[in-house]
Amino acid sequence: MTDVPHCPPQPNPAGLRRVAVLTSGGDAPGMNAAIRAVVRTAASQGIEVIGVRRGFSGLHRGDFVTLGPRDVANTIQRGGTILLSARSSTWRTPEGRARGARHLRAHDVDALIVIGGDGSFHGAHFLQQEHDIPVIGLPGTIDNDLYGTDHTIGYFTAVETALDAVDKLRDTGASHERIFVIEVMGRHAGHIALDVAVAGGAEEVFIPEDAKDMNSVLDTVRSSVKRGKLGSIIIVAEGYPGGATGVAAAIQEGTGMETRVSILGHIQRGGTPVSSDRILASRLGEAAVYALMEGRKGVMIGRQNHEVSYTPLNETWEQRKDVSRDLYRCARTLSI
Amino acid sequence: MTDVPHCPPQPNPAGLRRVAVLTSGGDAPGMNAAIRAVVRTAASQGIEVIGVRRGFSGLHRGDFVTLGPRDVANTIQRGGTILLSARSSTWRTPEGRARGARHLRAHDVDALIVIGGDGSFHGAHFLQQEHDIPVIGLPGTIDNDLYGTDHTIGYFTAVETALDAVDKLRDTGASHERIFVIEVMGRHAGHIALDVAVAGGAEEVFIPEDAKDMNSVLDTVRSSVKRGKLGSIIIVAEGYPGGATGVAAAIQEGTGMETRVSILGHIQRGGTPVSSDRILASRLGEAAVYALMEGRKGVMIGRQNHEVSYTPLNETWEQRKDVSRDLYRCARTLSI
Amino acid sequence: MTDVPHCPPQPNPAGLRRVAVLTSGGDAPGMNAAIRAVVRTAASQGIEVIGVRRGFSGLHRGDFVTLGPRDVANTIQRGGTILLSARSSTWRTPEGRARGARHLRAHDVDALIVIGGDGSFHGAHFLQQEHDIPVIGLPGTIDNDLYGTDHTIGYFTAVETALDAVDKLRDTGASHERIFVIEVMGRHAGHIALDVAVAGGAEEVFIPEDAKDMNSVLDTVRSSVKRGKLGSIIIVAEGYPGGATGVAAAIQEGTGMETRVSILGHIQRGGTPVSSDRILASRLGEAAVYALMEGRKGVMIGRQNHEVSYTPLNETWEQRKDVSRDLYRCARTLSI
Amino acid sequence: MTDVPHCPPQPNPAGLRRVAVLTSGGDAPGMNAAIRAVVRTAASQGIEVIGVRRGFSGLHRGDFVTLGPRDVANTIQRGGTILLSARSSTWRTPEGRARGARHLRAHDVDALIVIGGDGSFHGAHFLQQEHDIPVIGLPGTIDNDLYGTDHTIGYFTAVETALDAVDKLRDTGASHERIFVIEVMGRHAGHIALDVAVAGGAEEVFIPEDAKDMNSVLDTVRSSVKRGKLGSIIIVAEGYPGGATGVAAAIQEGTGMETRVSILGHIQRGGTPVSSDRILASRLGEAAVYALMEGRKGVMIGRQNHEVSYTPLNETWEQRKDVSRDLYRCARTLSI
Repeated sequence: MTDVPHCPPQPNPAGLRRVAVLTSGGDAPGMNAAIRAVVRTAASQGIEVIGVRRGFSGLHRGDFVTLGPRDVANTIQRGGTILLSARSSTWRTPEGRARGARHLRAHDVDALIVIGGDGSFHGAHFLQQEHDIPVIGLPGTIDNDLYGTDHTIGYFTAVETALDAVDKLRDTGASHERIFVIEVMGRHAGHIALDVAVAGGAEEVFIPEDAKDMNSVLDTVRSSVKRGKLGSIIIVAEGYPGGATGVAAAIQEGTGMETRVSILGHIQRGGTPVSSDRILASRLGEAAVYALMEGRKGVMIGRQNHEVSYTPLNETWEQRKDVSRDLYRCARTLSI
Repeated sequence: MTDVPHCPPQPNPAGLRRVAVLTSGGDAPGMNAAIRAVVRTAASQGIEVIGVRRGFSGLHRGDFVTLGPRDVANTIQRGGTILLSARSSTWRTPEGRARGARHLRAHDVDALIVIGGDGSFHGAHFLQQEHDIPVIGLPGTIDNDLYGTDHTIGYFTAVETALDAVDKLRDTGASHERIFVIEVMGRHAGHIALDVAVAGGAEEVFIPEDAKDMNSVLDTVRSSVKRGKLGSIIIVAEGYPGGATGVAAAIQEGTGMETRVSILGHIQRGGTPVSSDRILASRLGEAAVYALMEGRKGVMIGRQNHEVSYTPLNETWEQRKDVSRDLYRCARTLSI
Repeated sequence: MTDVPHCPPQPNPAGLRRVAVLTSGGDAPGMNAAIRAVVRTAASQGIEVIGVRRGFSGLHRGDFVTLGPRDVANTIQRGGTILLSARSSTWRTPEGRARGARHLRAHDVDALIVIGGDGSFHGAHFLQQEHDIPVIGLPGTIDNDLYGTDHTIGYFTAVETALDAVDKLRDTGASHERIFVIEVMGRHAGHIALDVAVAGGAEEVFIPEDAKDMNSVLDTVRSSVKRGKLGSIIIVAEGYPGGATGVAAAIQEGTGMETRVSILGHIQRGGTPVSSDRILASRLGEAAVYALMEGRKGVMIGRQNHEVSYTPLNETWEQRKDVSRDLYRCARTLSI
Repeated sequence: MTDVPHCPPQPNPAGLRRVAVLTSGGDAPGMNAAIRAVVRTAASQGIEVIGVRRGFSGLHRGDFVTLGPRDVANTIQRGGTILLSARSSTWRTPEGRARGARHLRAHDVDALIVIGGDGSFHGAHFLQQEHDIPVIGLPGTIDNDLYGTDHTIGYFTAVETALDAVDKLRDTGASHERIFVIEVMGRHAGHIALDVAVAGGAEEVFIPEDAKDMNSVLDTVRSSVKRGKLGSIIIVAEGYPGGATGVAAAIQEGTGMETRVSILGHIQRGGTPVSSDRILASRLGEAAVYALMEGRKGVMIGRQNHEVSYTPLNETWEQRKDVSRDLYRCARTLSI
């Protein structure tokens, strides 16, 4: 690393020399930016990085690659994850984790960074508990439903992708004076739905956090037509009971008006990450390496109120992050 | 029009003084550019333009607006249609057409320009036959399935929108090593599917024009995995029997591999038109006015081999435009 | 407003009945979303809105329009400002402000909302001081250089537009192994430059807030080539002494390597606003109306740490918002 | 190649066994799609491909890599060129070409495919003449100024990128009622400028193929303001004498109106290629391999009127492709 300029060494009381990194669960735009930040921050500190391919499934099988600064060149703008991801059930068992731990020790790995959602943090948590391997979690999921960080890596891009689709659907919806019921991602949380609804000028938004009175929705739709609106946009989080299909059926039955359903699906996971995701991922990847050097472990690194924050992994799934109630109210006011 | 500079008057043997324009059927990006071109070309020639709102349904009800050059300012880049569209069954009856004709005559309209697909041209054709009102058709449909023109207005944008979605799905598909089966628009024709497949680097493409041997498809998918491909993209036109859902089920059953279905749907209709659609629409809108001034009628105006072409309206639905067989073959070669 | 559903009345101790709104200074994406939020929030509370066209210049001339909920339909996604903007020197004089105040009183306007930067807030501040007309400022500028809010309306879109250009330039830069020196907006502040540099994976970033040692920059560039990087991206804020042209000349002279300059310019002001700008503008527009109803005045409404904040107008230009020093350091680490 | 399915062998009377490919001159979006098509078509026929890095400069130095079907995976959507490009003066000399020829023979290369513009075809032409190595040219340049093909690889994307910038500038220009004079690429030809002008709804377009009467332009601008247009867009090809800067100065002096200049520059070279460029590149890359197998050489492969065409290399620079005069006239009519 003699050639790397200008990066002052940080204190390394933990004596970190080699760290592994993996991506797990559903992929999210910005994961590559996080990997890159881990690799380059580590390199600037003389620490080596091992990439684990295919998440915990690869950890279990020892599917490892060495990652240097040039290996992550030209990846910051790429969607998906160069380390691949997979859903795995092996790490759910003590045996699976024991195998993973053996692979890590055999490669002289001092610590593991896991980029993913709370399901992935579960696995990481038990790995640390059972095998005393320090782990750090980075919030990588489009759903933004992790306690302990204002935003998750991938969230901003998913909102932008969904919003772009809503803008397109409004064009055609307004031309035909139709009601479009659009389902966005969010199995347990309405963060994406709410942002898309406000930014997309939607008539109504359905989120898992709140049950709607369907009669009041029907009133809104009818009154909106009376007020001369051309077409309506209604956003439904996938986790709302019945989904977009259920909501559309209820509206069509209740008002007799033509509705169309659009389920945006997996496009929300892909694509070039927007700047906010790249920057968040860069900051968190950097912070993860420094945290391990300082001896931190068992925490998810997030950003809250523009500061780095450290949340014990178990709190990320035990506690719950609510949607912004202010924004939920605002969505209603602005749709008149 | 005294202030309009530099537009030399064209011969007007037909004595055209006032023309009506409407958009009909499914909306397509670029329809506004076509309306704008009709309005401005007419204005440059001292001809007035009446916009008919909501397609044939509005024609039937006399839903008319006057359109001057400033009314179409800042519309060339907008998706949808400022004249609105609607599917109507009234013009299918002689009575419906008679009512529309009365409205046109009451407003001193000399001729009608219809922007839409072959269904809309049907109505236009009979209006001219029964009421001697000259009509001109402009090909406005994303499906590109109109005989008599190399491309239709909206087609290029629809392909680009679908391709953008495919690029995003490939990111996530490759990260998870999954097979994505993506359904694009095209009820009767595989033009969009084929272009998207070639441009998106798809493994396979299913179009209504050609029945596939499913065993051979399964071989392709299996061999693709064997050759080390991360994830596969398979494109299906909505008009292929079974659609994406059917194809995905067959692949999953036949290979045991995990597949995901994505139905892109109406987003393909919306959005800012790409340059090719705006330019095509501008050229065709201009040509429509000149054609009526020259006394042409009962034809669709298209472009073939970079020249304006005139196709009798009935041929647009009696004849069939095939997909490019060369490109279909090329798609296969390049997916290895 | 009897038809508007579900919007509970807020306390209105100030007795607000009619409010004016204007956009001033350089336009920023999201200004329309802010206008829309003001209009619709007001309408939900039975308050009328007057739009002032062409900023303070229009205020001075009484260039007013009434704005109802339907007038702002389909504007949330539009760049620019439907109220137009202008740079004006008339409001800098007491006479100019007196004329504006007379127009406002003649139209029974109770308060004025000004969407713009600190220059515009100056005018608003003196208008209130001299004529006792309550004013509220909303931060509308792409530069993000306003004290009293974490982000300004338009900033997120400007960063995204500049980043998109950087991604494109990297493609061609890497293919030719060239150094691209790219100038982004920011006359007094490096916020855009810094975000774009981190998100764009730039080698170096030059901001007005910090003078660089050019020798160290030359070392970085040389070492980057030695480490096998294909092409380099260097970001320069327009306010850095010499701009991109000066930096490029110094690099070319110092290293003998081929450099290209790209000055992104006004494209950074335009375009469909991204979700973050639309949401921020929606929240701030809503908060502005409620603030006036509560009797607040002479403040800029911002958001800090996810809460609405109120900053006396004069502080917005007397105090200074620094760039994130953490991010500035991070930019360096991640470019190795 | 035993595993490659379904690609019927083509006749190979030329006995082609190994072909080299290089990209040369300014890079263009879609070059990677062309390389990919060459590699995969060749592989499907049992022919090996050698990639030459850094254009003729690399040919001269023997900078070669082997390219198999997996090496070009996931490249169809990437801007730039994975083979890198360079401007080289070595191949302009007989000695330079002789060295290149020796390298090709030493690697048993039977033929060379050159992707670039007419400058690059010059080099290829002499290489064939002097050393009897069959060469094929593929038109890769954003300028679309090559005789012998309707469109060149990269042209469609460059137009789209420039148009996107124009759409953004119109937002801000209309908000400030300014005249924007925008310079697009095209040193010798106005193809990009003309398409962008029509699609962008520009007031005027200046192309190298036609000298404008500046007085008439000033009339247009003045009359446009009189007719109530908010802001004007004027497009200038870089090859027009004086460029955008000269045109803007003349307008400002002649009308006293405020003008802004925007020079779009190199962003027009980069970015993900649009579908039309990917498809064109795919078709041409495939055709290049088949052409060599059939024994063709010394020709550029293009597409004209939807058919593959073969043009002797020397004609590509000796003959000239004009812009569409119809479209040039249309631009004027539609800007009223």
